[in-house]
Amino acid sequence: MPSSEEGGPERPLDEFSLIGKFFSSWTDVPVPWKSQGIGDDCAFLDLGAVRLAVTCDMMAIGTHFLDSADPYTVGRKALAVNLSDLAAAGASPRAFFLSIGLPAADPAWLERFSAGLREEARRYRCALLGGDTTKAASVGEKPGKTVISITAIGELAPGAGTGRTGAAPGDDIWVSGTPGDAFAALLAAWGRLRVSEEALPYLKSRMDTPTPRVELGQELLGIAGAAADVSDGFCADLGHILERSGVSAEIFWPDFPRSDALRTLPEAVQKRCALSGGDDYELVFTAPAARRESVKQAALRAGCRVSRVGRILPAGCENRILEADGSVSAFAGGFNHFSDS
Amino acid sequence: MPSSEEGGPERPLDEFSLIGKFFSSWTDVPVPWKSQGIGDDCAFLDLGAVRLAVTCDMMAIGTHFLDSADPYTVGRKALAVNLSDLAAAGASPRAFFLSIGLPAADPAWLERFSAGLREEARRYRCALLGGDTTKAASVGEKPGKTVISITAIGELAPGAGTGRTGAAPGDDIWVSGTPGDAFAALLAAWGRLRVSEEALPYLKSRMDTPTPRVELGQELLGIAGAAADVSDGFCADLGHILERSGVSAEIFWPDFPRSDALRTLPEAVQKRCALSGGDDYELVFTAPAARRESVKQAALRAGCRVSRVGRILPAGCENRILEADGSVSAFAGGFNHFSDS
Repeated sequence: MPSSEEGGPERPLDEFSLIGKFFSSWTDVPVPWKSQGIGDDCAFLDLGAVRLAVTCDMMAIGTHFLDSADPYTVGRKALAVNLSDLAAAGASPRAFFLSIGLPAADPAWLERFSAGLREEARRYRCALLGGDTTKAASVGEKPGKTVISITAIGELAPGAGTGRTGAAPGDDIWVSGTPGDAFAALLAAWGRLRVSEEALPYLKSRMDTPTPRVELGQELLGIAGAAADVSDGFCADLGHILERSGVSAEIFWPDFPRSDALRTLPEAVQKRCALSGGDDYELVFTAPAARRESVKQAALRAGCRVSRVGRILPAGCENRILEADGSVSAFAGGFNHFSDS
Repeated sequence: MPSSEEGGPERPLDEFSLIGKFFSSWTDVPVPWKSQGIGDDCAFLDLGAVRLAVTCDMMAIGTHFLDSADPYTVGRKALAVNLSDLAAAGASPRAFFLSIGLPAADPAWLERFSAGLREEARRYRCALLGGDTTKAASVGEKPGKTVISITAIGELAPGAGTGRTGAAPGDDIWVSGTPGDAFAALLAAWGRLRVSEEALPYLKSRMDTPTPRVELGQELLGIAGAAADVSDGFCADLGHILERSGVSAEIFWPDFPRSDALRTLPEAVQKRCALSGGDDYELVFTAPAARRESVKQAALRAGCRVSRVGRILPAGCENRILEADGSVSAFAGGFNHFSDS
């Protein structure tokens, strides 16, 4: 969960250029196995009869979670966001490793946190196989905040797995669920958005306990050309697919799925939340137009709603959003952790 | 690196009981593959033709590193402590994943940090295959401190790998290098110990750039019965072996290896640093007395000093340290991150 809204037009060095600049292209370090590296939701490691998908995410109380967050939902969501990366790749969750930095040894907090973590682990059959517990660094006289890092490992058949590079011009663009709900709940928690008492519980549930689309990702293996999970915002995460695949996109806003709860809000707010909110952990994916029926059948088997929301354009086109009245607007950006630093 | 000295006799819930209490015995979550879980330096994952060893460590500026630490050495050491866990298992480093929480996007810091990380990756042929960058949570008005979590993966032949459960009565206890140097440097940095100008640079180099004993760990496969790396203190880490193997130990203090730099300090200080200091990233391991020559040959091949410092006793004996004058003392504890919380 982002801690604050996007900054203005002057964006400092962002998360993606940070990674690209300092932590890639280490040509003097041999890469083991056959693997794909930084840039997708998961790295793939080819180990003979099995391919592993590996992902890691770090989350801090105060940055990704409100200070008041229930430790049970923190545990659930901390694992869910990693499972969501495995879902994008189509991998079956197998195991995870947990590092946690705590300001103090608080048994009540840990008990709730571990209960949430265990519940999510049980649902998705993903075993905790190791970890590290340490003390969060104090800042001045004050204790530091809890920080959680999870590395999750999924399994794929050799050669299988959906990455971000397989989108081709003419492909449909699909999205699962109803993105935007989590961000609307966050805006409400910040006091920046009035939400009715009827709508709020649903929106809040999508923020606190997102559903990693593990079954859908598995069902889409061999059907989807490219996939990503919606963590930074729909347009931003689709943008990663476009960049890695060397293509462009247009989105049909009238077709964009929105929950009844989100539809209680003004359309401009719906649009902002759905297209650039982030924290939804739905899947955005592409598939050839000839595979529409296959996509729908896959979604039925996974028990998950999917919506066709746009199409892939050739490289060099401007990414655009088409409105009901025929007007066109530019892509909205996603959340950048450092934009207001 | 511990941030402060050990607390008094009243120790609150410590790191190990935390892990044991909340994060193990999840009998409702299926364990994938054939694997060993929490309790060793690494988890082993058996994937057909290959066994993986996986470990993770979290480190924070202000807890594990001094606030003034050079980011280059932070990068080196952050990977080294994970490689040290792989070394204990005897695994060949292959890949790692980095999650980093930063108070701000500071290109100068990141450049130095990534240079150190890359240098260590290059030395041990361990490729960076993925990661996550996020913003450290602020505490009040102040920015949070940098926190680093690394998950490292090593490779073993099927069935190979040294754990902590294989120590047997009568086995020798060995240690690599000269434990205690890092903690002496830390005490000096805290202003709690006077160290001569001649001795300080060496001690400080052992604190800043420990040498993961990767080659030694590999050479000891099939020779060592049990191994652990010395991160929490020699007695504490040997204690993990004893507990997991269900045995006891006696240590011959006069035989304990000490660097010339450490020997410039009073013997009581040497003993405290060497036996309970921590942060050395040497290996403590056991081997049958009949394999002494094999251990020495393995150390020669690895280019690493090893010293025989004690022996394994049957279960139920009191763990003890034998002095030169024939007197006996009890085991000293290791560092506990939460002991002064």
